Amino acid sequence: LQIPELIRKKRDGEALSRDEFQELVSGYVLGRIPDYQIAALLMAAFLRGLDHLEVEYLTDIMMRSGSLLNFEHLPGRKVDKHSTGGVGDKTSLIIAPAVAACGVHVPMISGRGLGFSGGTLDKLESIPGFKVHLPLIRIYQLMERHGLALVGQTDDLVPADKKLYALRDVTSTVESIPLIVASIMSKKLAEGIDGLVLDVKTGSGAFMKTIERSRQLAQAMVDTGKRMGKSVVALVTDMNEPLGLKIGNSLEVEESLDTLQGKGPPDLTVLCRTLAAYMLWLGEAVPSVAEGEKLYDLAIANGKALDKFRQIIEAQEGDPRVADDFKYLPQASHRLGVEAERAGYIAGMDAAKIGMSSVLLGAGRQTVESPIDPAVGIIMSKKVGDFIDRGEAYCVLCYNNDAGLAEALRLCQTALTVSEMPVAPKTLIKEVIQ
Amino acid sequence: LQIPELIRKKRDGEALSRDEFQELVSGYVLGRIPDYQIAALLMAAFLRGLDHLEVEYLTDIMMRSGSLLNFEHLPGRKVDKHSTGGVGDKTSLIIAPAVAACGVHVPMISGRGLGFSGGTLDKLESIPGFKVHLPLIRIYQLMERHGLALVGQTDDLVPADKKLYALRDVTSTVESIPLIVASIMSKKLAEGIDGLVLDVKTGSGAFMKTIERSRQLAQAMVDTGKRMGKSVVALVTDMNEPLGLKIGNSLEVEESLDTLQGKGPPDLTVLCRTLAAYMLWLGEAVPSVAEGEKLYDLAIANGKALDKFRQIIEAQEGDPRVADDFKYLPQASHRLGVEAERAGYIAGMDAAKIGMSSVLLGAGRQTVESPIDPAVGIIMSKKVGDFIDRGEAYCVLCYNNDAGLAEALRLCQTALTVSEMPVAPKTLIKEVIQ
Repeated sequence: LQIPELIRKKRDGEALSRDEFQELVSGYVLGRIPDYQIAALLMAAFLRGLDHLEVEYLTDIMMRSGSLLNFEHLPGRKVDKHSTGGVGDKTSLIIAPAVAACGVHVPMISGRGLGFSGGTLDKLESIPGFKVHLPLIRIYQLMERHGLALVGQTDDLVPADKKLYALRDVTSTVESIPLIVASIMSKKLAEGIDGLVLDVKTGSGAFMKTIERSRQLAQAMVDTGKRMGKSVVALVTDMNEPLGLKIGNSLEVEESLDTLQGKGPPDLTVLCRTLAAYMLWLGEAVPSVAEGEKLYDLAIANGKALDKFRQIIEAQEGDPRVADDFKYLPQASHRLGVEAERAGYIAGMDAAKIGMSSVLLGAGRQTVESPIDPAVGIIMSKKVGDFIDRGEAYCVLCYNNDAGLAEALRLCQTALTVSEMPVAPKTLIKEVIQ
Repeated sequence: LQIPELIRKKRDGEALSRDEFQELVSGYVLGRIPDYQIAALLMAAFLRGLDHLEVEYLTDIMMRSGSLLNFEHLPGRKVDKHSTGGVGDKTSLIIAPAVAACGVHVPMISGRGLGFSGGTLDKLESIPGFKVHLPLIRIYQLMERHGLALVGQTDDLVPADKKLYALRDVTSTVESIPLIVASIMSKKLAEGIDGLVLDVKTGSGAFMKTIERSRQLAQAMVDTGKRMGKSVVALVTDMNEPLGLKIGNSLEVEESLDTLQGKGPPDLTVLCRTLAAYMLWLGEAVPSVAEGEKLYDLAIANGKALDKFRQIIEAQEGDPRVADDFKYLPQASHRLGVEAERAGYIAGMDAAKIGMSSVLLGAGRQTVESPIDPAVGIIMSKKVGDFIDRGEAYCVLCYNNDAGLAEALRLCQTALTVSEMPVAPKTLIKEVIQ
């Protein structure tokens, strides 16, 4: 097969066969096909699209580009959750232990923060000692002992995605629904799961800004997963304002611990309950989503969800004392309130700006190599719909040094929109696609 | 400027500015922008197109990526001709000396054969000793002494095109009219010419197979040249059957010499007269194209055109005796006639197949590195519309060894279409765009 001929086919809108995707993906991973030919192919795929079968072929072939996890020797169905990323989204830290506490295995492989979106691995690493990069044999051990693993990708899992994603990032071919589906689903299905709950964020703080694009992405992931024999549900959820009240790595661990003790903010609590209920339902631990919510609430109420989190922290070499006392988590040395310039009802708190503000304080990476400061971040005190007085702080910046502070403050100030008229709170869960 | 943002703009159909093209082209030539980003950009440009201004910017910036020739110190206007390439197209060898003999300077920089299309440099090099790769100082000397140079590209002329073309070739982004225009026009305008006559071929043996695409390309090149202050005319000419009767490097030199002596085949003679007349008109040597034809005919009749060719052969270190006796040109050792299987009127002689047949005999390159045999090729004895008897040879294969002969013969046999009904000859010059 001639690579330019395959590029030409996609360029002219023709569909590629499974064999052709195999040739392209394996040739690229093995270094036989140069970056520039794949870059041209990705741009052609971006602009011409991929049909359902092509997405399925690409996903399956990418998934099989490295080693696959397999938990068939463990009882019951294995489920995971994946979020497309947002600001203040710490649901993984809450629902993974809660669902595992209810008896459903969760082999959760997460990523790092990217742009203004936080990353589960960065949050977990703010727990002193916590190890996210574990060899396969340790991941199998964690799953057998605890029914749970909270880890990062190993080098040999879906190498095709690592190489393709890095290329897409520098060739402006990221925001393509078929390519996003293949990237996400190949990684998730390589985990050896039976069921997957997707949290597709929509709004200013999300990768997908409009409800239409978010719905398309959700539907495409559900369709692809189902065609590949998995149970998949997608929730489309609001990301115009941050989720919960705390943003930043150790701050989000704090809020996760609060939520695991039933003391979390209402929006985060509701979303975690819903996501966990769908996971329990796909995991066949309950006959309905409503029963799933009850089981989740019970695991929170009887402390088993928190216990499971404490166990996994200890198993992954973290300091389990953080579960009972936040003083064992890194704390920022300085705090600065951001005040409303006029009184009124909060109409908007731009999640992208607040997320970028936390990145400027050091909570995220401005380049791939930047170090992050686990202690810094932002604590919100309001949600959209709340009333705020003139001069009242609607959030507090938690920081360790002044670099980036002025710019972070300015961004946070422009993030707030105040209205004289009452404003309805945002609807958090906008759609369920299954 | 961020390169991914420039790729994104083109991907989303936005126009790039002059500064942005400058950044992209200079960054690529200097090696600061990697192949894969330019590959993605080229595919986006292929699928989204470039508007008139973008083509002009890209052409001008590519043209200025290396050194420019400048003949302002020489009297009168300088003109050139460019053909998009075909089978049996040896017009450059005839009209360049003829026009120079009429007093208009012709700084002609040509290329090599590509696929089934022959290349002027390969044809010139079949003249024993002829040098096409000359340093700039020699090109200036030739232009001053002879008003003519028949040379190849120097390394420092339009380096952007060399690098971009090589990348387009392996990323299936060649057949884009805006990119073709920028490639051709940047090279031609770097010659320091005032006027340009374009011969855009159309049909099976041309790069552009349909009259619509050929017309679009011709129009786009004329528009771009005019906006850049040059006088440009384009002829759209038929390339469904080979031009003239001889195909192959030294064979085409023979036919060129015949034509310079007024003994050429009618189609080649007419096309050369027309192209030369437009060059003379753009060169302001004559007040009209009709006067240009008369002046060309005179230069043929009085032998000045042939004298000029003889001079330039000698000046470029070739053996000038070829002009008077073909025995000084390489000759193939074997000949094989290809016979018609049935009698009738010739309805088609597929130029692509006949061109590829000559490549198989060794007249062209199957890969960039292949050596070529200057002596081999094909001599046609018929044109479309002619009557042929069963068993009559419609062409003769001239070859030196049997490798490729069987395949060349088979291709030539399938190239012929015979009709029982009389067939009109092809219209050679289909359109003039100015």
